[in-house]
Amino acid sequence: MADLNKPVIVLVCPQLGENIGKAARAMLNFGLTEMRLVSPRDGWPNPSAGPAAAGADIVLEQAKVYTTTAEAVADCAHVHATTVRKRGVTKPVIGPDEAGRQVHTLAGRHAILFGPERSGLETEDVALARNILTVPINPEFGSLNLAQAVILVAYEWSRMGREMAGAGDTLVQPTLEDTLPPAPQDELEGMIAHFEKLLETRNYFFPHSRAEATRRTLRGLLTKPGWNHLEVRTLRGILSSLERPPEEQEPVTPS
Amino acid sequence: MADLNKPVIVLVCPQLGENIGKAARAMLNFGLTEMRLVSPRDGWPNPSAGPAAAGADIVLEQAKVYTTTAEAVADCAHVHATTVRKRGVTKPVIGPDEAGRQVHTLAGRHAILFGPERSGLETEDVALARNILTVPINPEFGSLNLAQAVILVAYEWSRMGREMAGAGDTLVQPTLEDTLPPAPQDELEGMIAHFEKLLETRNYFFPHSRAEATRRTLRGLLTKPGWNHLEVRTLRGILSSLERPPEEQEPVTPS
Repeated sequence: MADLNKPVIVLVCPQLGENIGKAARAMLNFGLTEMRLVSPRDGWPNPSAGPAAAGADIVLEQAKVYTTTAEAVADCAHVHATTVRKRGVTKPVIGPDEAGRQVHTLAGRHAILFGPERSGLETEDVALARNILTVPINPEFGSLNLAQAVILVAYEWSRMGREMAGAGDTLVQPTLEDTLPPAPQDELEGMIAHFEKLLETRNYFFPHSRAEATRRTLRGLLTKPGWNHLEVRTLRGILSSLERPPEEQEPVTPS
Repeated sequence: MADLNKPVIVLVCPQLGENIGKAARAMLNFGLTEMRLVSPRDGWPNPSAGPAAAGADIVLEQAKVYTTTAEAVADCAHVHATTVRKRGVTKPVIGPDEAGRQVHTLAGRHAILFGPERSGLETEDVALARNILTVPINPEFGSLNLAQAVILVAYEWSRMGREMAGAGDTLVQPTLEDTLPPAPQDELEGMIAHFEKLLETRNYFFPHSRAEATRRTLRGLLTKPGWNHLEVRTLRGILSSLERPPEEQEPVTPS
């Protein structure tokens, strides 16, 4: 049974099995157990992962494999993309401490994305996320390996949980009981696809040379709000009504 | 020249050169540069250390070697012994956050001791220390490797320094310097009006008895994101393109 208070750790296109094992060990060091793998380069399972996990076998055994990042985070309401470099994407930039705090305070499942060892996350993976998670590292030596990034995030999730558990009187948390969590990622994707389909009929993505950037801008706009399930449903209704041309429209007598 | 505000990282009887290199990398990730080695098993320098340091050569080049732990910390006013296991020694037990805080607040040089990979610090090394530094780890999975322990301590030293530099604030706010503020209310109102006008042509607000509630829902949806000026402008463009029927649309050659 998934623990909704724990983030899902998503390794996107990890290269070495050894690093997957080390990441599993770092997770379990702080009690995180749910790992997802997006297209691991050398397939899965990987015989190099087990020895490097140093006993964190339960994490590896339960790891699920996905073809795309979008599929891996489909059930998650909050996606955080770990990246050092600024990607020209205008999203809030948070540190591991704030990410840890958000996992404990914002309802809905959280996914934390980590890119492949050599290159980091691709722009389209970052585009899925609401936040950019950056470890505030020595600007003159920015090389942080995968397991090290994972352990800092896991540590802060654990630390913030303890801090908040003992901080009821000093830190007043916003009441979120009336607030629904953001819709899961697959509902968001459905809405974005609907929007794009509608705009294609207006040649909104013309010229083709700029279509990709325009799509990314649209995705950024629609990812930012964190709309909940009901809000997404309302927007789908709006999009459906906009698909119909004005002249077809006739007032219908309500039943 | 030693930076008195930075702790000295002391590796006691480290076994593998690779782990010394990884520890150096973890240190430099957060700007720590002073490493001391007590009787490294395979001597020093160690050819395996450099490749594992991944560019943190400056730390390795400046590393000093000592025969005993006592000699290695002779000039230090505060010694913290990193160990998971309780050693039957009655000393204060602190976490990496408190250790980081002490380095910044208690005058005098601080040394942080890390034991050999397999066995950890010996009792006599722990006895040198004022504090026992324990990473609050998953009690059911206590295996933390050397470089992971070093990076958590280095991270907390860095984080506490930043937190105290911005002191007064109890909560470290996320950095949003790249994020524009939400558009002024009149721009938001203009966008909402534009949206409503478009939807009226589709009879979206029918029946009239529910129009007011539907408008309120729409306004809530569009107010929630806090879209900035550029985002609102993009949305206005989208709305304008949706005003035109699909069939009028012709690809236009860009100028």
